[in-house]
Amino acid sequence: MHVTSEQRLDDGVLEREFTLGEIPGILWTPASTSASAPAPLILLGPPPLGLRTVYPRLVARARHCAAEGFATATIELPGSGDRPRWPAAEQARADLRRAMEAGEPVNDEIVDALVLPLVEKAVPEWQAALDALLSLPEIGGPVGYSGGLISIGIRLAVVEPRIVAAGYFAGSLVPRTMFEEARQITIPLHVLLQWDDEGNDRQAALDLFDAFGSREKSLHANMGGHTGIPQSAAEAAIRFFTRHLK
Amino acid sequence: MHVTSEQRLDDGVLEREFTLGEIPGILWTPASTSASAPAPLILLGPPPLGLRTVYPRLVARARHCAAEGFATATIELPGSGDRPRWPAAEQARADLRRAMEAGEPVNDEIVDALVLPLVEKAVPEWQAALDALLSLPEIGGPVGYSGGLISIGIRLAVVEPRIVAAGYFAGSLVPRTMFEEARQITIPLHVLLQWDDEGNDRQAALDLFDAFGSREKSLHANMGGHTGIPQSAAEAAIRFFTRHLK
Repeated sequence: MHVTSEQRLDDGVLEREFTLGEIPGILWTPASTSASAPAPLILLGPPPLGLRTVYPRLVARARHCAAEGFATATIELPGSGDRPRWPAAEQARADLRRAMEAGEPVNDEIVDALVLPLVEKAVPEWQAALDALLSLPEIGGPVGYSGGLISIGIRLAVVEPRIVAAGYFAGSLVPRTMFEEARQITIPLHVLLQWDDEGNDRQAALDLFDAFGSREKSLHANMGGHTGIPQSAAEAAIRFFTRHLK
Repeated sequence: MHVTSEQRLDDGVLEREFTLGEIPGILWTPASTSASAPAPLILLGPPPLGLRTVYPRLVARARHCAAEGFATATIELPGSGDRPRWPAAEQARADLRRAMEAGEPVNDEIVDALVLPLVEKAVPEWQAALDALLSLPEIGGPVGYSGGLISIGIRLAVVEPRIVAAGYFAGSLVPRTMFEEARQITIPLHVLLQWDDEGNDRQAALDLFDAFGSREKSLHANMGGHTGIPQSAAEAAIRFFTRHLK
């Protein structure tokens, strides 16, 4: 892990850009963090649009988490941002766009081609990032995972025992095979659902929530579209992590 | 409104039992309440089991609300507790029990006979209680409604403009005609759903949530049966009232 730049934001949060091999990432730590008072870590799963594109939303989440004493970090997904192009992923995205614009149903093949290779490739990268981040003296466990592509969050919750709680943003582009993995999850889950999400099949999201194996899971549905999550819901998600990571 | 007994609970909450004509009720006010610092009021809708039966749960909710600065009050439903027996309501309850014990579907006729007369009779009583409670100098507006039989809460939200926010416990014994009333509601709503509620049809509860006309409404689904609401969900409900009544 190689820090390429660092800056203090106006609220004292330390933002460090880093690379992990070829993978760019960002780490935010609260002003008061130190080796003698390490901060618990929340991994911020990014949507597949590239860190630069979603930076404003990411830094807002990071500041919010820092105010409650959490370090946060994220890395670029394969094929996104400045990472090498990934023709197969681009093809799958183009197929999805074409189906949606034509008003056709998005069939299982399209979803599988879009999501499964990304999960296969990204999850080991997130685990490597976790190794590097947890080796920093100012970062402590336990670790939470929040948001981003829900299928990556599901796979991580199944294979990565250092993650002890997860907050998901319910999405419907979830391969059917991921439902089987969802049943294997046992950590506490906090699931957000935007009731009128234009890119989301509500029933599929409810079915996925039902499938999660966790004894402690809660669904928080709010009005509005994909980006309309109310402030109160964001605060409730942070309280979930405070209950489970502190 | 005639106070029949009063006592200070160990946390300083003042509990007053009262009668309003023939109707018994209970009022709880925070220790610090006074005419110069009146408390906003949350009406606690009781389940139809009688105030004495559910007193432990009611007083727990009242103390919790008082700790956040809210006065709370409730009155006995028609035909419940010490109020005169109501043969038609008893017959409807017996019909429901018989259908459920026989494993038969609970049809619309049974639900209508059980709920609609109760709503018709109870809602004007709750409005009269509101008149009396708001005439006390230590009680201020605005007013919230929380829990209890959801159909009474729906009707109150439609007809009573002094109620500006409501928290419901999603139940499925809701007459079809109440769905039309649900569409007329415009105040902010906070809806709890127990995902595995043994006495509840989950899909009916989700349909009802979808029907509410409010632009601001949120659904909070947690694991477990009817009485298994987690502490975090109870706290989130209080925060909802703090956002809207203070």
